[in-house]
Amino acid sequence: MQETQEMNQRGTLVLKFMVLKDKLSEAVNQVMKSVSNKTTLPILTGIKLTATHEGITLTGSNSDISIKSFIPKEEEGSENAIIDIPGSIVLPSRLFSELVRKLPDDEVFINADNRLTAVIRSGSSEFNLNGMDPEEYPNLPVITEKESCSIRKDLLKDVIKQTVFSVSVSETRPVLTGVKWTIQDNTLTCIATDSHRLAQRTIPIEHGPSATNQELVIPGTSLSEFSKILDDDGEETVEMIMTENQILFKVNHVQFYSRLLDGNYPDTSRLIPSESKTTITISTKELYRAIERASLLAKEEKNNVVKLVTEGDQAEISSQSLELGRVFETIPIDKFEGENQRISFSAKFMMEALSRIDAQSVRIHFVGPMRPIIIRPIGDEHILMLILPVRTF
Amino acid sequence: MQETQEMNQRGTLVLKFMVLKDKLSEAVNQVMKSVSNKTTLPILTGIKLTATHEGITLTGSNSDISIKSFIPKEEEGSENAIIDIPGSIVLPSRLFSELVRKLPDDEVFINADNRLTAVIRSGSSEFNLNGMDPEEYPNLPVITEKESCSIRKDLLKDVIKQTVFSVSVSETRPVLTGVKWTIQDNTLTCIATDSHRLAQRTIPIEHGPSATNQELVIPGTSLSEFSKILDDDGEETVEMIMTENQILFKVNHVQFYSRLLDGNYPDTSRLIPSESKTTITISTKELYRAIERASLLAKEEKNNVVKLVTEGDQAEISSQSLELGRVFETIPIDKFEGENQRISFSAKFMMEALSRIDAQSVRIHFVGPMRPIIIRPIGDEHILMLILPVRTF
Repeated sequence: MQETQEMNQRGTLVLKFMVLKDKLSEAVNQVMKSVSNKTTLPILTGIKLTATHEGITLTGSNSDISIKSFIPKEEEGSENAIIDIPGSIVLPSRLFSELVRKLPDDEVFINADNRLTAVIRSGSSEFNLNGMDPEEYPNLPVITEKESCSIRKDLLKDVIKQTVFSVSVSETRPVLTGVKWTIQDNTLTCIATDSHRLAQRTIPIEHGPSATNQELVIPGTSLSEFSKILDDDGEETVEMIMTENQILFKVNHVQFYSRLLDGNYPDTSRLIPSESKTTITISTKELYRAIERASLLAKEEKNNVVKLVTEGDQAEISSQSLELGRVFETIPIDKFEGENQRISFSAKFMMEALSRIDAQSVRIHFVGPMRPIIIRPIGDEHILMLILPVRTF
Repeated sequence: MQETQEMNQRGTLVLKFMVLKDKLSEAVNQVMKSVSNKTTLPILTGIKLTATHEGITLTGSNSDISIKSFIPKEEEGSENAIIDIPGSIVLPSRLFSELVRKLPDDEVFINADNRLTAVIRSGSSEFNLNGMDPEEYPNLPVITEKESCSIRKDLLKDVIKQTVFSVSVSETRPVLTGVKWTIQDNTLTCIATDSHRLAQRTIPIEHGPSATNQELVIPGTSLSEFSKILDDDGEETVEMIMTENQILFKVNHVQFYSRLLDGNYPDTSRLIPSESKTTITISTKELYRAIERASLLAKEEKNNVVKLVTEGDQAEISSQSLELGRVFETIPIDKFEGENQRISFSAKFMMEALSRIDAQSVRIHFVGPMRPIIIRPIGDEHILMLILPVRTF
């Protein structure tokens, strides 16, 4: 312990506070979602801690997203933190997040001196960490509240889950790695497509901008990370503030910034067939499981393609692998309209689409073996999934 | 469905049975522990299914271990299987185990014809699989019951957990990749060492061989896999049958064969110091957690070494990383005897040893900074962990 004290005495304290471990740990976990160890700017491997007389702010950032999490000094009458000396320090993120989780006591005492040495104490545990200069930490974008609206947290979480899986993972058309958000007349429409499939959902929003239509494309990875921060409880709302190249989400004590994608998002409305030659109503779960089993063989082949054949009141799902064998599945069609179809598609795409649908049954529309398949949950016209078939002959 | 029936009609059925999915799935999971996809003998990528009028046997095998799991036709008055045509087939293991888990119905109908095509039906699901010739499947070692003994299942699971982690992972001295078992006077002593640390435990056994001492070295990986098959419930016993180069464990309906390792296992008794300069009694959990935190910095350095310094009634654990900083931990010593010590050791080795000890406190014996450290749980003299210190000056 002697060595430690000497070390601290070398510099002047420029930051000193106590914070509850659970609050600190929660905030660290939130900002860690924006911290990458693969960054060209070394300081961004760190988490910035800033203490003011109001509380403590943690900041993490990478080239796409930045996250601020605020721990108020007091909350609902109980004390989260005591600030002795307001100030800042940047600490190595991975080490800091691991050690915070493992500290022995409920209270954590943190200080830093003007030589950038930080001391973290908890119970009989004491860490001396080499920090980084908070002056070198880049400023987050300044966002003036121009266009803003609010959305229910659970709805936002749903809409992200139901669209983001369809974004493109290829960088050949960067704009397709994002989800297009269109805000119009108090509704938000989200569309994602990788040009082989598409997912679309419309939800109501509150306090929409009085101005004209708003269109933006948000990187899919940003939305996935943001979704992880949204817990499941409560019907809180998330505030969204949009500028030309940034979107800021505010929820509880978290601010989540994401850059927007440039480029023209393609007009997807023409992809969706207006006619339907065949419409079937079928159990979501039974269809999912039959395709999952057929996929056991299909995935051994390169394309993971399964075939669906309708025979009036039943559908046959099949696939084969030259090496391993074949599989046949029959499932009842609850309601059949139109002509019989034989169509092949990616098992993976169909399973991903069906797994995002909560409804017990889906309605599937076919136009022909080479035309898009449309899947909609029964009882919810605001969700649409589209899958392009695969030519197998 | 027409295609399927044609396919079956081509050959003569040589195997036909029904089995409950849960029973089949359990047996498949057990034998899968011995199946590797990296094998030089293609037939060993499969699981062999054999139906007799008594029930169904599944077999899996690799170069080290073989597992047989038997599903009796009837068990406790209820029916597990109906055998129509006794026979055998070998099916691709990975695909078969995945599909069994995902079958829709409780009952599974399996048949195979003389052209090695197997059909697996469950509910409205039907798989046609290309099987392999059971005649090509190697015979398991024939074991005549020469030397056998029994051991309580929970004790066996414990003794494996408490020793196998210390085996060598390097093939430079192959015999050290195994655990040495010595059976003598109705006790079993298990010893594992990688020459930097050692773990040893003695347990009682039942119906030991009346013959002389028995010594064998069992591959660590075999014991790890076998341990996964042992569930936690009940005080059943495991029967062990030993031959010159094989050991067979029998428990419930499972037979687990492992080859034994050749070569002379070193005499480890001389490694264990007979004297002790310092003896401390300390909380297992507190020591573990302090070393775990110190290890956060230590593991950033190549050797993951922490230092322990005793100061009468307290122990200081520390470590440092030039790049990141330092950590100091103080924990109370419950009972101190002898002179103070300064000693460095691998954090990983100490954590692995402590995590295998259930007792609340451990007694640690030191002889000096370069002599082995001995750790024993308080209240159980049958367990001994040894760690060699690391020179840090």
